[in-house]
Amino acid sequence: MSSNLVKIGICGLGTVGSGTFNVLNRNAQSINARAQAELEVIHIGARRDNPDCDIGEIRVSRDIFDVARDPEVQILVELIGGTSVAKELVEEALRNGKHVVTANKALVAEFGNELFALAEQNNVVIRYEAAVAGGIPIIKALREGLAGNRIEWLAGIINGTGNFILSEMREKGRDFADVLTEAQELGYAEADPTFDVEGIDAAHKLVILASLAFGMPLQFSSVYTEGITRLTTQDVEYAEELGYRIKHLGVAKHSADGVELRVHPTLIPEGRLLANVNGVKNAVLVEGDAVGPTLYYGAGAGAEPTASAIVADIVDLARELSAGQSCRVPALGVATADLKALPVLPMEQVVTPWYLRIIAEDKPGVLSSIASIFSDHGISMEALIQKPPAEGETRVPLIVLTSRASQGSMDVAVATIEALESISGEVARIRVEALDG
Amino acid sequence: MSSNLVKIGICGLGTVGSGTFNVLNRNAQSINARAQAELEVIHIGARRDNPDCDIGEIRVSRDIFDVARDPEVQILVELIGGTSVAKELVEEALRNGKHVVTANKALVAEFGNELFALAEQNNVVIRYEAAVAGGIPIIKALREGLAGNRIEWLAGIINGTGNFILSEMREKGRDFADVLTEAQELGYAEADPTFDVEGIDAAHKLVILASLAFGMPLQFSSVYTEGITRLTTQDVEYAEELGYRIKHLGVAKHSADGVELRVHPTLIPEGRLLANVNGVKNAVLVEGDAVGPTLYYGAGAGAEPTASAIVADIVDLARELSAGQSCRVPALGVATADLKALPVLPMEQVVTPWYLRIIAEDKPGVLSSIASIFSDHGISMEALIQKPPAEGETRVPLIVLTSRASQGSMDVAVATIEALESISGEVARIRVEALDG
Repeated sequence: MSSNLVKIGICGLGTVGSGTFNVLNRNAQSINARAQAELEVIHIGARRDNPDCDIGEIRVSRDIFDVARDPEVQILVELIGGTSVAKELVEEALRNGKHVVTANKALVAEFGNELFALAEQNNVVIRYEAAVAGGIPIIKALREGLAGNRIEWLAGIINGTGNFILSEMREKGRDFADVLTEAQELGYAEADPTFDVEGIDAAHKLVILASLAFGMPLQFSSVYTEGITRLTTQDVEYAEELGYRIKHLGVAKHSADGVELRVHPTLIPEGRLLANVNGVKNAVLVEGDAVGPTLYYGAGAGAEPTASAIVADIVDLARELSAGQSCRVPALGVATADLKALPVLPMEQVVTPWYLRIIAEDKPGVLSSIASIFSDHGISMEALIQKPPAEGETRVPLIVLTSRASQGSMDVAVATIEALESISGEVARIRVEALDG
Repeated sequence: MSSNLVKIGICGLGTVGSGTFNVLNRNAQSINARAQAELEVIHIGARRDNPDCDIGEIRVSRDIFDVARDPEVQILVELIGGTSVAKELVEEALRNGKHVVTANKALVAEFGNELFALAEQNNVVIRYEAAVAGGIPIIKALREGLAGNRIEWLAGIINGTGNFILSEMREKGRDFADVLTEAQELGYAEADPTFDVEGIDAAHKLVILASLAFGMPLQFSSVYTEGITRLTTQDVEYAEELGYRIKHLGVAKHSADGVELRVHPTLIPEGRLLANVNGVKNAVLVEGDAVGPTLYYGAGAGAEPTASAIVADIVDLARELSAGQSCRVPALGVATADLKALPVLPMEQVVTPWYLRIIAEDKPGVLSSIASIFSDHGISMEALIQKPPAEGETRVPLIVLTSRASQGSMDVAVATIEALESISGEVARIRVEALDG
């Protein structure tokens, strides 16, 4: 084994920071053999100690910027989170010629373009395997493992909290608010769950995956983001009757007209592997022109799964550092100059089949009015469930699966349906993805 | 984009060879951007031309060794298959300082140890992503993506032909021989299907995965290999009644006593993702101490999926060649000197739950005799199905799921049961894997 030393600084010693430290220690022997170097954490930046890890005599700075300025540190691991101080810290580290490993999806999604360029200028790289889908090596798969492919689309369950909530709603018939409270008690959801349930966290991850897959700059502000807060157990059940499950997906597609970037609840056929990814687990399905579909599944969060991804990044960098080489794999797989700014398709033009729930008066002619409105807009009904009215109720839910239609056409058709006298309230609608290429 | 040229030789221009050539051509622009080099196939070794690819003016040699001796070639892609000529070819290429990319699982599994050592001596590497699970980047995941983990076990559906046969048997109630004939007509199975249905192909792949996962030399001759030829549709149906599916798995486990290396039909709980991998698809489930379970799914064979893996290997090598660097990632993730020769556990000591089918006379006392034999050997019955006898028949099948028991204990218990007067013929038995860590 090489006795080359690679010196690491860790900023942030919370759950993930201590998990990373502990994995590096526990598996030091095999990690060093793989890195062909001895990895040593020489400097930790943390506002306070963490009783979950025994850092011994390692130098600790309360000012994390001391780590970024430490001339000995070769790899800085940023685990403080957020996008303000973290961004300054990463910039300082890059300017000082240090490679950076981060688990910070918001930082990469929102500021990746400038940070990657800054890294390139300083002949170092930023690695962020842990920023998407936790311990699943999906970044490496897209950046390297599928390098021969033109990626056509990808779809992922990339927020564990949301998937836990949807899994519980389906399996136990519980409603959204009820499950969210439990998720918060279990520590799966934050006190402010907005990032998770409104899809912002998933959007951060999606935009990173899309840039890697399609070789384009990060365009976080262009992601369409729809949360799961308005989903009802009724919709979950009706979807099931139709042979579908509802998942909160991030979807990126590359077509001749542009790129689709969207996060939203989605009906997927129950036989698909993605439909069977339950609880807090994550999975990403990728369609490449040569390889066809491949899927990657595992823990999307947690101290040690995240640490697994961070350590893999460190080992990659250490292999090259110990040989005195510069890193040959840019952050997005290609050099910044080779990225292509592909246009993001407006949602009006995005075409999918749809699930609709329409509350209608139970009387003759209603269904034919609805059918003729769809027909006027070139939309056909592929499946229909009509339930008998409940005792004393004159209205019934009509559940419709439609053919593929653009959101633009569907907007008009739905508005026309909602204007019918026999229809109550808003039509609920959810996109459908067949996920079959 | 860099204008560094990386020069490639391809030996073998059959299905995979022409697929590789075509993918390299079709996606040249993005592949070159990722490689940060211009990849150029400069020399092809093939006994005959292939009308499926237009190689233009590229030099062709009928003697494939001309490619291994071509001083211009930097990466030799071995796609001729087999283990005699292919081995000599790879040795010649390595001795001449060329990196080698191969899809040849038999070659790697049976001769990898010496070939990897020879590569190391010549300061080049052998890459073989395409040798296991086709286009799924599972080699890279184990070698790099999970580098921080101690891998505890892995289990894979790594032979598409076998999985196609088992999927058809389950979905359509067809018997083995019938489906095999269809698989041969569809081109999924060879005229001589031995390698696939007897598990030899899966054993080749398993031993490669195990060596990567556990950091040990390849031990192909130590893999226990049991095929699917004796499976009956009855067993498939009974398994289903018990909530299981039968899959042909390769399983590698690392325990305190040694390593288990085994390929055999296996009952797995129907809710597991692996149980839902159907048709010719492959999937590998890996349990790491930090990351927990991760799963990798995709096409396990076919021209372009295999080409996808080959091109990924080429891009990895080209990134370093174009920068004049030597490759920093050894074939098995660690240097040959760092591999550990772990003992392979004899099958008698391998412990799993079991599925048993016992044909017994339908009379009082039989079940209690069987139960007491199990009890004598410390085995308990976890589930039992007893069917009424068919019209005019006095014997009934007893289907038993047992607790965990070593093969040694089970051998003795089964022999004792078979010796009972009320039992007919041999007891059919299949291992069970819960796949939950």
